[in-house]
Amino acid sequence: MANLSVLSLNKFRCLLGDRTIENIFDNASTLSEKSAVHINSTYQGGGVAEILNSLIILMNDVGIKTDWRVMHGSHDFFSVTKKFHNAIQGERIHLTELKKKIYYITNVNNAIFTHLNHDFVIVHDPQPLPIITCYKKRQPWIWRCHIDISEPMKELWDYLKMFIVKYDAMVVSMNKFRERNLPNHIIPQFIIRPSINPLNIKNDVISESTISRYMQKMGVVTDKPIISQVSRFDKWKDPKGMVKIFRLVRKKLDCQLVLMGSMAADDPEGQEIFRQVERAVGEDKDIHLIMNAPDIAVNALQRSSTVVIQRSLKEGFAITVSEALWKSKPVVASNVGGIPSQVLDNKNGYLLDPMDLQGFADRIIHLIKHPELSKKMGEFGKEHVRNNFLITRHLIDYLNLLKKVD
Amino acid sequence: MANLSVLSLNKFRCLLGDRTIENIFDNASTLSEKSAVHINSTYQGGGVAEILNSLIILMNDVGIKTDWRVMHGSHDFFSVTKKFHNAIQGERIHLTELKKKIYYITNVNNAIFTHLNHDFVIVHDPQPLPIITCYKKRQPWIWRCHIDISEPMKELWDYLKMFIVKYDAMVVSMNKFRERNLPNHIIPQFIIRPSINPLNIKNDVISESTISRYMQKMGVVTDKPIISQVSRFDKWKDPKGMVKIFRLVRKKLDCQLVLMGSMAADDPEGQEIFRQVERAVGEDKDIHLIMNAPDIAVNALQRSSTVVIQRSLKEGFAITVSEALWKSKPVVASNVGGIPSQVLDNKNGYLLDPMDLQGFADRIIHLIKHPELSKKMGEFGKEHVRNNFLITRHLIDYLNLLKKVD
Repeated sequence: MANLSVLSLNKFRCLLGDRTIENIFDNASTLSEKSAVHINSTYQGGGVAEILNSLIILMNDVGIKTDWRVMHGSHDFFSVTKKFHNAIQGERIHLTELKKKIYYITNVNNAIFTHLNHDFVIVHDPQPLPIITCYKKRQPWIWRCHIDISEPMKELWDYLKMFIVKYDAMVVSMNKFRERNLPNHIIPQFIIRPSINPLNIKNDVISESTISRYMQKMGVVTDKPIISQVSRFDKWKDPKGMVKIFRLVRKKLDCQLVLMGSMAADDPEGQEIFRQVERAVGEDKDIHLIMNAPDIAVNALQRSSTVVIQRSLKEGFAITVSEALWKSKPVVASNVGGIPSQVLDNKNGYLLDPMDLQGFADRIIHLIKHPELSKKMGEFGKEHVRNNFLITRHLIDYLNLLKKVD
Repeated sequence: MANLSVLSLNKFRCLLGDRTIENIFDNASTLSEKSAVHINSTYQGGGVAEILNSLIILMNDVGIKTDWRVMHGSHDFFSVTKKFHNAIQGERIHLTELKKKIYYITNVNNAIFTHLNHDFVIVHDPQPLPIITCYKKRQPWIWRCHIDISEPMKELWDYLKMFIVKYDAMVVSMNKFRERNLPNHIIPQFIIRPSINPLNIKNDVISESTISRYMQKMGVVTDKPIISQVSRFDKWKDPKGMVKIFRLVRKKLDCQLVLMGSMAADDPEGQEIFRQVERAVGEDKDIHLIMNAPDIAVNALQRSSTVVIQRSLKEGFAITVSEALWKSKPVVASNVGGIPSQVLDNKNGYLLDPMDLQGFADRIIHLIKHPELSKKMGEFGKEHVRNNFLITRHLIDYLNLLKKVD
């Protein structure tokens, strides 16, 4: 079983070489007497918490005494912040005084039991954003926003901006996610791309026997090609389109499709999408729908796949793409959001217009028919991730950021 | 809308009188230069987090600088600790070295980003129990166990005991939950019963119009008697038995049953129970099954009920009973777990053998037919909760505990 020890930077030596690791320790040395704290909210989905879990341990490992605080809130609070989230990404919502009050008071409440005396405070995403107003600011505060803020709903943004500009710096995941109307002299914006931890249970090397065991558990045979997509059952991930593409592929060759994803009980829209996909699948024994699988099953599936797909219609960064590339798999994906920074067309996979179902099918067939090409692309993909999307690069970005704002 | 301001002890003056509040402030004065931290795990269910949310704010309000830290863990960790939880309550599990390792390493990991320099450390439940081994102990540590540990699986308990005895004190919720084989000179055991916060959104006074709005949303009419149970859809809460009892009651008079509960997506047993209840209900328009309702809907339902039921076959404390009593409702309940400390037979409701379905039905009918009796019992129930199960009493218990271990 992978990952049953405490993470440390030294464990990356065999992946990255001694030189790189020594450089990171050197880079961190001027920060080694410092302390920092990350504040995020529990219910903002697994991605941010997954990154923080590795990043915070590595920050401690290089000598920065780093704490982690998690926001608590009521059902109402999370329902308001979910609406804010959608509105930041461009949807229109009804911005009432009541919503603002629920949002703000929850932050005041959290500040009561969040005593801060750190050298740096890093606040993640909109949920804890206003907490800055509850402190006498004695250190640099950074707002780390993981979502696309390039076209927010104006009325909400005007409200949130009053909190944002109190910070000393903000960080977004991609240049195209930046807010264009916040000039640098008001608040400097930095870019830090997401990353994967190659040593966690979702990405670490696992034995062939572990892989077989999990594939067997899922009822997926490994003697014919596997096409897979790991994504929430959500309209923006278009699982129904994926079923259509699969049927185009299967006209030409025998293969299987696995759609793996998580779904929250309180997400009626997700439940409905799942039922629609179930109906579309019908009695088809070659299509497997897998819900809420543990990380090790995600790992096993990605490693067993012949081709990995990311058929998003709209996307944030889609770090699942890097997870698949790291396992040396070619990825056929939509040319949206952060995907083109990970998939380089014709190098480690193919980028397509999400509407081009036949194009997806043709590329998948081509890769299944040309295992040598898949292998070459897979190797290129792994190197691309090694150079760009590992947690160690993320750590370096944070070290540089802290030095800049110090 | 209730509860849109920050909680403080002064807000309890109108409920408890100035004298009581002044006494609490006085009681806390010797601790006012102290600091404390609570550590719990996110996924241990809403009850503990709900209490901590109020308690920690009040501890800060009386002058103890109190922090809150939340444990992070993988799916595997929570699956192991869920098994531990069941085994502590008497089930048999297969206690492997792998399970112990996942449990322990997750605690080591959490200690890395949990820097403690407080005067008191309070650790909740088994999930973060071993974290004590990761620190040079410089202050009193308290293990606060919210579950029944009177008959734990021996092999697991022997393992956990090695961590438990490192603490300076432990706290359980009821005398009958105590571990009988841990003598006082090894570790003193204290009893602190759970409580409700009368000012949070689940319990605060809400307007008639708010109540009607939520009852309407749920499709429940208010012009005939409402019998309700608020509990997870779980075999130990016996929702199917509740449907049978309701049908016995309806032979005698026209009324409705509302079963309200939450259910996690990853709880297949709960899903199955829910489906069984749905089948038992069939087309019966007088039975309402309500899932994952917000707190304010729980409040509205309890306030609209004629009689509240707690038909548990096995029970921890069942704080939902105090929630109903606080709303001046008579409660007909099983004589199990912590229920008899809340329901006093013939005074504020009735206690019954959980197998006695006809007995439940008879008592419900009796209460519906005698509104004056229900009213009297409801008033008695509210006073009983005021004197015994409010968060302010809980706060006093904590103040006394901290003084004892200091």
